[in-house]
Amino acid sequence: MPEMPEQSATAGRRFDTVLIANRGEIAARIERACRELGLKTVAICSEADRDAPYGSTADSFLCIGPSSAARSYLNQDAILLAARLTGAGAIHPGYGFLSENAAFADAVEKAGLIFIGPSASSIATMGDKISAKRAMMAAGVPCVPGPDTSLPDDPTSVERIALEIGYPVIIKAAGGGGGRGMRVVPKSDQLHEAIALTREEARKAFGSPSLYMEKFLQHPRHIEMQVVCDDHGNAVWLGHRDCSMQRRHQKVVEEAPAPGIAADIIQPVGEACVQACLQIGYRGVGTFEFLYEDGAFYFIEMNTRLQVEHPVTEVTSGLDIVQAQIEAAQGHVLNLTQGDVTCKGHSFECRINAEDPDTFLPSAGVITHLVLPQGPGIRVDTHIHTGYTVSPYYDSLIAKLIVHAPTRAEAMARMCDALAGTEIEGIATNIPFLRSLFEDHAFARGETDIHYLEHWLKLRRAA
Amino acid sequence: MPEMPEQSATAGRRFDTVLIANRGEIAARIERACRELGLKTVAICSEADRDAPYGSTADSFLCIGPSSAARSYLNQDAILLAARLTGAGAIHPGYGFLSENAAFADAVEKAGLIFIGPSASSIATMGDKISAKRAMMAAGVPCVPGPDTSLPDDPTSVERIALEIGYPVIIKAAGGGGGRGMRVVPKSDQLHEAIALTREEARKAFGSPSLYMEKFLQHPRHIEMQVVCDDHGNAVWLGHRDCSMQRRHQKVVEEAPAPGIAADIIQPVGEACVQACLQIGYRGVGTFEFLYEDGAFYFIEMNTRLQVEHPVTEVTSGLDIVQAQIEAAQGHVLNLTQGDVTCKGHSFECRINAEDPDTFLPSAGVITHLVLPQGPGIRVDTHIHTGYTVSPYYDSLIAKLIVHAPTRAEAMARMCDALAGTEIEGIATNIPFLRSLFEDHAFARGETDIHYLEHWLKLRRAA
Repeated sequence: MPEMPEQSATAGRRFDTVLIANRGEIAARIERACRELGLKTVAICSEADRDAPYGSTADSFLCIGPSSAARSYLNQDAILLAARLTGAGAIHPGYGFLSENAAFADAVEKAGLIFIGPSASSIATMGDKISAKRAMMAAGVPCVPGPDTSLPDDPTSVERIALEIGYPVIIKAAGGGGGRGMRVVPKSDQLHEAIALTREEARKAFGSPSLYMEKFLQHPRHIEMQVVCDDHGNAVWLGHRDCSMQRRHQKVVEEAPAPGIAADIIQPVGEACVQACLQIGYRGVGTFEFLYEDGAFYFIEMNTRLQVEHPVTEVTSGLDIVQAQIEAAQGHVLNLTQGDVTCKGHSFECRINAEDPDTFLPSAGVITHLVLPQGPGIRVDTHIHTGYTVSPYYDSLIAKLIVHAPTRAEAMARMCDALAGTEIEGIATNIPFLRSLFEDHAFARGETDIHYLEHWLKLRRAA
Repeated sequence: MPEMPEQSATAGRRFDTVLIANRGEIAARIERACRELGLKTVAICSEADRDAPYGSTADSFLCIGPSSAARSYLNQDAILLAARLTGAGAIHPGYGFLSENAAFADAVEKAGLIFIGPSASSIATMGDKISAKRAMMAAGVPCVPGPDTSLPDDPTSVERIALEIGYPVIIKAAGGGGGRGMRVVPKSDQLHEAIALTREEARKAFGSPSLYMEKFLQHPRHIEMQVVCDDHGNAVWLGHRDCSMQRRHQKVVEEAPAPGIAADIIQPVGEACVQACLQIGYRGVGTFEFLYEDGAFYFIEMNTRLQVEHPVTEVTSGLDIVQAQIEAAQGHVLNLTQGDVTCKGHSFECRINAEDPDTFLPSAGVITHLVLPQGPGIRVDTHIHTGYTVSPYYDSLIAKLIVHAPTRAEAMARMCDALAGTEIEGIATNIPFLRSLFEDHAFARGETDIHYLEHWLKLRRAA
């Protein structure tokens, strides 16, 4: 049975000040969206981010703790205190940090504030891989073959499940994510050892030994669907993205739409995602992530937050996803129907990281010279400027370079040109790596999968 | 009788290198478009522009003369020589300088090169106000009441024409433009003196004493239609722009679409513009400029070139106008029909000028600090960077700030935010002036005409 939709807890609730519980480019992005909606903003920072430019443009700016994220951006008490001090009525968690922390969402709402995101229970349901899979199957979302229950301890039952699925299989921690807590089992003789190792890892890393087993797909692509929902039973999907270009399970380049997939194959999957949102009473924006192999989709997880790659969907769909997310939290009725959604052209996003382009080791320091690309079809989401100090404490993402053009080939050409027009001195960046990637022929033809980039790097290192 | 379409002179003609006969932001814009189309580029400069950034990114870069425009950017022989030296197969004139010079277009074609623009005869027809008006009337484009012939010398005939049109009338030089060579006549007793003065001015400024007379509109708006045509009998219009915000006949802010005009009023005018293009065999991109008053349109002139404000149409229509222009010159068949044109959202462009925001006197010097706005729905077309020297020799336009959002109100909010996020130090700019303009209520309501900005400035000065 599908779960009942939750009560519209936010209906009629209003706020005029938003505390942005994040840093970097996404803090700047959210601050702009708030300002455009006529909302006041509170920026927070750790000691390392005292000079952040979005701090000086926010209505209030508070340093809430030391540089270590655990003592600042992950410090729930300090964030709630900052909200109380500044009179903020809502908290936007951005991505990463506390954005998918159900306990935090709950604490925010209990403090009488609005959490800009789905309800704590939606986060919790989707945060657990097994309950998420169960909800998806109930809504008709295609899932990876394998039971929607955690693996039993009994070795014989486990062996039977693996045989039913068929090798290779993959063992995953129910509470895992981001590529951690998973192990591929190519043959039956490695099954029990793999389970033992993964269970131990899951206990340590995620605080729960719960595991599940699925069919392992050999060469899938990573395709995802962006949804936006209000609190009144309305939901739409804004098309799809391909994020197969990954290094160590971290996305490097994203694009919209996913190339080369016929509408009649992807359309029902998008509709099923909308159905799933309605069944779980989902509010705000979210992303359904799928593996795609041989013409079939397999749900892997839902991200119950704004994603780094949301701009590729914004430029193709014309919708401001961050504004839509804030309006959903305000209890507004979604002002578009599925029929209003028309995606136009093709978009790429490159994540510009402060890191060595060969070793990928993080690079910190002062940006001594900065020229960002400008012009038609180019968007840069960033918080950096000449004189900005890139600190070693956080994620190495310093800017997102987004291009939009009528066709995929034109968007690739535009990205090549935009990367060539980007000058960042004082720190190392991955721009040289991105530039050579955008000259790759297989990538240009769209013939890649989630292993392609690692493979390409291996060949490049050997050469 | 409508003129016969010209022969498709460019059909099948190809080039692989484009010489960009311009400077500043538009040189950078054209260079990017060429690169994206896989074309090589030749940048040229005067001595004042030796450090232009688009010079270092072009395939070739030549200094063709001293700083004075007459001896460099207007020096036809030097430009043709530069094209021959570098093997360029085509010349893009940009806007201003030689872009509407029929003799130059002719010289380019006679030298065996392709002029990226319409034929010399199209430029000549449209450059003469009387022949342009005749062509427009033949195509059913609505024109300002008044004869499509030059004014006779005979005082009695002139008086009769003025009475037929009805006072106030306006006397214009047939070869004029840009607000020069025109004079309003409120009453009959001022007619003969006005004609004598304007004729003398026309002779001096435009080399021809030919004048014409039209009805003078009191409070019109400036509305224009963007067209794009190929050399094979295909033409589309890409919607309209409102450029009423002018100071001394110079556009300051442009927007697309023109607000508050019903589709059934504007649609037939756009269709008539397309018809006019087909009848004169027009090739490439162009703009039909109209006055709009009390629900009626009156053709004033056609710009037979790319315009400064083309980006507002690019972001709403999704079409790259510069690429389309180059492809038309290559003899490509236009790859869209009128039915493919769908304009989305609302766009504003602010011209950022190096000038004192109060006195509007030009400002020159080194840019010591530069932060350009970034993020969703923001585009900056510029060539400047930190350390760039703004020279006193040319037009004061240093950057164009373009925003795009779903509605006009959201686009205005985005522009306010983008202007606030722009930091330019070392020279004076008109940003403070633009910021206060975007806070004006009448402008926000779209209740302005071509005199509004001057009136607003007067009130502001008095306050």
